[in-house]
Amino acid sequence: MARISGEFAVIERYLAPLAQGAAGAFSLKNDAAVLQLEPGARLVTTVDCMIAGRHFLPDDPPETVAKKLLRVSLSDLAAMGAKPLAYLLSASWPQDLEESWLAAFCLGLAADQSRYDVTLVGGDTTATPGPMTLSLTAFGTLAGAAVLDRSSLKPGDDLYLSGTLGDAHLGLRLLRGEIPGLPPVPRDGLIQRYRCPDPRVDLGQALLERGLAGAAIDVSDGLAQDLGHLLAGSGVGAVVRLQDLPVSDAARQALDQAGETRAGLLSGGGDYELLFGAAADRRDALTALAADLSLPLTRIGEARRDPGLAVLDAAGREVQLESTGWTHF
Amino acid sequence: MARISGEFAVIERYLAPLAQGAAGAFSLKNDAAVLQLEPGARLVTTVDCMIAGRHFLPDDPPETVAKKLLRVSLSDLAAMGAKPLAYLLSASWPQDLEESWLAAFCLGLAADQSRYDVTLVGGDTTATPGPMTLSLTAFGTLAGAAVLDRSSLKPGDDLYLSGTLGDAHLGLRLLRGEIPGLPPVPRDGLIQRYRCPDPRVDLGQALLERGLAGAAIDVSDGLAQDLGHLLAGSGVGAVVRLQDLPVSDAARQALDQAGETRAGLLSGGGDYELLFGAAADRRDALTALAADLSLPLTRIGEARRDPGLAVLDAAGREVQLESTGWTHF
Repeated sequence: MARISGEFAVIERYLAPLAQGAAGAFSLKNDAAVLQLEPGARLVTTVDCMIAGRHFLPDDPPETVAKKLLRVSLSDLAAMGAKPLAYLLSASWPQDLEESWLAAFCLGLAADQSRYDVTLVGGDTTATPGPMTLSLTAFGTLAGAAVLDRSSLKPGDDLYLSGTLGDAHLGLRLLRGEIPGLPPVPRDGLIQRYRCPDPRVDLGQALLERGLAGAAIDVSDGLAQDLGHLLAGSGVGAVVRLQDLPVSDAARQALDQAGETRAGLLSGGGDYELLFGAAADRRDALTALAADLSLPLTRIGEARRDPGLAVLDAAGREVQLESTGWTHF
Repeated sequence: MARISGEFAVIERYLAPLAQGAAGAFSLKNDAAVLQLEPGARLVTTVDCMIAGRHFLPDDPPETVAKKLLRVSLSDLAAMGAKPLAYLLSASWPQDLEESWLAAFCLGLAADQSRYDVTLVGGDTTATPGPMTLSLTAFGTLAGAAVLDRSSLKPGDDLYLSGTLGDAHLGLRLLRGEIPGLPPVPRDGLIQRYRCPDPRVDLGQALLERGLAGAAIDVSDGLAQDLGHLLAGSGVGAVVRLQDLPVSDAARQALDQAGETRAGLLSGGGDYELLFGAAADRRDALTALAADLSLPLTRIGEARRDPGLAVLDAAGREVQLESTGWTHF
């Protein structure tokens, strides 16, 4: 297999085609890109870094590595209610990377560019003696003055979670061989959730546009930890009920196989679902939104004046968590 | 010495103070930042990655590593005529990094934030088992519809270079011990040019605002190579005269000590000077601009219809270059 060689050849062959749709990308021949926003729009920007062996597994398929890299940043945009626009890629490739890997990686990006209507507009490519290190800067736009934030959760607000909780975390544990004996269904689906999350881009925009939520965060490092950020940012506490957590049938089977309860799911990261607060008079509107998006929106608890997070079991007793979630060092 | 620990503590202690000036940075408590542009302004954005041992030396002072990281991206903005606005930092720190290193690194960023009137607005921090990998996304703005580009160089245009050529490259060679015996003056000054370039931010904006140049590039990978990008982008060729290259006294002494000629400077990177084309009727205006900025702007040759780059010696004979410059892999 051919190894990649020649920074400019790589850019021209694999990356420039991803930038065709954007005039301000200058076919990646400039060191900088120009972005033109709609009048009155504000720009939202975020950067996320993924390192082989740490944020993805070295033998993960290159297509899903690419998609995860982009989707993790799109999830950050979603948590603010922004509409995705474009992205920059800063890639440090190992010196012995196969060209076929790079080609497949770029196919993954191309597929997600169509899916999320975003375009590569620039980047930087370097060789590294260390593990592959991929840093992606995503851009989105906000049409009005409002934004979903982490500081506007109020006592009494319902707490909602989109989708289901824990699938990605269980997928990672399956890949690590920590839950042997689970059949391909549901095993493969859980692994797919780990490798390729679904950022809730439409949900974030709809929550903002319809005025249904003020405070939101994406669950990347574990629900307990990410909810902790919302609570700290807003100066409130919360109650979460274990039996109300949305757990997929697949996750249920994996938990049974591992002989574990669902409490551990509160510290598992990688789901990239949206966690948000909404006033109690928005319940009907949220039911309607869930139907519009064909996406479950589950009420898992509520914010309250008392500080801290109380997790309650089915009997209403408070549960102690062993760990709140992932920290990067 | 204390090792750094705790992603959120590091962000709060060292990075959040750098983001105080920007409301849309949310004190780095959000995963994304909001940027509000002046009405009609366009955003310019660029990302650059620096890896320890490859783009800087592991024992370079942390302050200059920080400054170089920021300035390399500001240089990309300068080459488009943009005004610096803000930046994101994606940092992968080695697990055994000393906290004092990080503190000094952030002091370097703070100093340059004042100098260039930019603010940290967000980022991502991870730990890496590999070499330190720093990726910085810079934002600038363009007030009008014009931009400096790489495609508007015309036959007959004068070619100008700001500042002096080759100091940074000689500084790197001095640090590597390749030019022994040079006294502290001029040695230390050349090393400083390598470690801490001066991006030509004011020059880029002035060239655009005064309508003096259309095509420009910053010399990061070597003059011959970067000029090659301008020529390819514009579909023209050029003549460059060796005896007209602006070479500092310090660089001259280093070349003498090494027993080398100035031809090698054409392939040395790291100067981050601006190379630009200007119509011949702009010479007086460029002389005035050089005086305004206290920055030498030297005519080093001109663009022509014949393709390719011809480098001429003092006798008008064409010189063959051994290498055109730096490629990243």
